[in-house]
Amino acid sequence: MSKNIFSHIPENIPEEIFETIISSEKIRIERIISQGQCSEEGFWYDQPKNEWVILLKGAATIRFENREEPIHLKPGDHIHIPAHCRHRVEWTDPDCTTIWIAVFF
Amino acid sequence: MSKNIFSHIPENIPEEIFETIISSEKIRIERIISQGQCSEEGFWYDQPKNEWVILLKGAATIRFENREEPIHLKPGDHIHIPAHCRHRVEWTDPDCTTIWIAVFF
Repeated sequence: MSKNIFSHIPENIPEEIFETIISSEKIRIERIISQGQCSEEGFWYDQPKNEWVILLKGAATIRFENREEPIHLKPGDHIHIPAHCRHRVEWTDPDCTTIWIAVFF
Repeated sequence: MSKNIFSHIPENIPEEIFETIISSEKIRIERIISQGQCSEEGFWYDQPKNEWVILLKGAATIRFENREEPIHLKPGDHIHIPAHCRHRVEWTDPDCTTIWIAVFF
């Protein structure tokens, strides 16, 4: 009945994996698995929905267009990304899997 | 700008701590910190909202009224509790803090 967020991780992650955990009219909860992927040069996410994201394993760096310093995320770090707040993933750790939970609302 | 879910944990948890991380019309995201607390004898949560909950640290046991076996949760375990699905927390580890994220929607 319960599932584990750290289970069923493929050995190789050639592309980021997005898995829907909960999907309803009002929210979507995703597990995201990365290993070394980042946003393409010049790409910015510009999302119609609010996002709350927590990194549970691994490491990543996010950059916001309106903020000079990038933000380094380690396990347990969470951040609220308001709708249309332009941001990009600058880096994810290539040496281990990075596991995120994202809540879109 | 980011916060850490494992930070700012009091040394003593005489009562469960409920902290709102995100609150909007559509959802509420909470951090819950337990240490040894459980639902009172005979008490069942019967919530008007759906809840998705993940245990990130510690250990707990949840029981559902409509299910004989209790569910033991370890770090990373997550579970969807539909609205009005009666359940109770039978046990949380008294020897360490248990940290949960709950999303109500």
